Amino acid sequence: MDKFMVIGERIHCISPTIRKALEERNPEPILKRAKEQIEAGATYLDVNIGPAEKDGEEVMTWAVKLIQDEFDNFPLALDTANRKAIEAGLKVYNDENGKAIINSADAGGRMDMFKLAAENNAKIIALCSKDGIPKDNDERMAYATEMLEKAMEFGMDPEDILFDPLFLVVKGMQDKQTEVLEAIKQLTDMGLKTTGGLSNISNGAPNDIRPIMDSAYAAMAMQCGLSSAIINPCEKRLMETIKTCDVIKNNILYADSYLEL
Amino acid sequence: MDKFMVIGERIHCISPTIRKALEERNPEPILKRAKEQIEAGATYLDVNIGPAEKDGEEVMTWAVKLIQDEFDNFPLALDTANRKAIEAGLKVYNDENGKAIINSADAGGRMDMFKLAAENNAKIIALCSKDGIPKDNDERMAYATEMLEKAMEFGMDPEDILFDPLFLVVKGMQDKQTEVLEAIKQLTDMGLKTTGGLSNISNGAPNDIRPIMDSAYAAMAMQCGLSSAIINPCEKRLMETIKTCDVIKNNILYADSYLEL
Repeated sequence: MDKFMVIGERIHCISPTIRKALEERNPEPILKRAKEQIEAGATYLDVNIGPAEKDGEEVMTWAVKLIQDEFDNFPLALDTANRKAIEAGLKVYNDENGKAIINSADAGGRMDMFKLAAENNAKIIALCSKDGIPKDNDERMAYATEMLEKAMEFGMDPEDILFDPLFLVVKGMQDKQTEVLEAIKQLTDMGLKTTGGLSNISNGAPNDIRPIMDSAYAAMAMQCGLSSAIINPCEKRLMETIKTCDVIKNNILYADSYLEL
Repeated sequence: MDKFMVIGERIHCISPTIRKALEERNPEPILKRAKEQIEAGATYLDVNIGPAEKDGEEVMTWAVKLIQDEFDNFPLALDTANRKAIEAGLKVYNDENGKAIINSADAGGRMDMFKLAAENNAKIIALCSKDGIPKDNDERMAYATEMLEKAMEFGMDPEDILFDPLFLVVKGMQDKQTEVLEAIKQLTDMGLKTTGGLSNISNGAPNDIRPIMDSAYAAMAMQCGLSSAIINPCEKRLMETIKTCDVIKNNILYADSYLEL
């Protein structure tokens, strides 16, 4: 199987530093976080510019060119609810080192994003939801199937769709965790790729416990077949866990130095 | 589901300190390790006296009484190839806080140990092997089925049998790991309990990497249903992982302080 795909989450407008840098078109904070994540082992970088209703097209164009120019066309996930901003980003995106990922489509109002992905030879994250969180796995799988059919109608290769089962917070939704893991297994058994915002599971837990929870969950999810996640690659314990699971799953060869590779 | 059962492995004659203490009937080193493991969260303590061909009966009798007298009849796994030593240990064993575990039976020459377990109302570890390591899961499952039938003929409750798929070392047998995990899943799907010497998977790896490997593997195995393991409960990262997986599996309730409980 392929090595786990780590989508670095740290270029995100929820961070005041990044929001300011995006507003002011200040390269330095963005390039710094890009570099840190690439060095920590990210396979992709997510570029979340928020809703970006005002100047989303310019911001995304600027950010994509900035990062790809500096880091040899490193592959990116273009993350915003603003469709025009995604289109603008795709126009300047160079895919020589990996297709762009559109973040994201869903089974509701964002179904047309699959058309955009197909037209631009891009990958896409497909949220298994329509209006809010799916109530159970029957709903998750129904949405996944709807999206898969639609994407294939548009000419997409299923390989390019990353299904996101929607990770739920343990604190408050503890009894739902087994079901989400089961959804990953079901999607994997259908031959599909999966991803998601993994650290959502530890939201609200004490900061020193979050990496412990994220790491244990990542290993359980990888055993179910999870093939990618949107995470902080600078979180040491989590990356150690992901690399180790890749070794145990025989995705990468064991060497005494495998954690440094 | 039940909380994961941690069988503490540190009272083992492979340790020079413990071997000497057993030979000299010196309580202190043994009680020290028992206390450390109980405080670290062990559910059971394994008492491995080795082949013990000479004075196995006296040694096991002494060790069982020593530990149970000091720690309120804490439950123990009696671990030796010497059948008479196990019998002697069972005679003095007090099961008010948990049945004794016989470590171990197999599908070959040690099939009669199931009779001993049945007669003494004990649990038993059932190695899925006959002569050496099983070559694949068909062999593992064939042995498991043979043992299950035999144990039930003797009147055992399947609940009291802990099937050990035999964990294999990653370094050298990397391509076999998925299969062992699959065996755990198959046994679990049959409604059976599982256990094993988990840290065997990281044998030969650098010491600083071993807890990382053991922890990732434990989480993957718990996702497959692993219900117990023979481990070092004083290994912090591993115990953190096990407790977290118990939370994710909804076996224990989440609280911000769950790692301290």
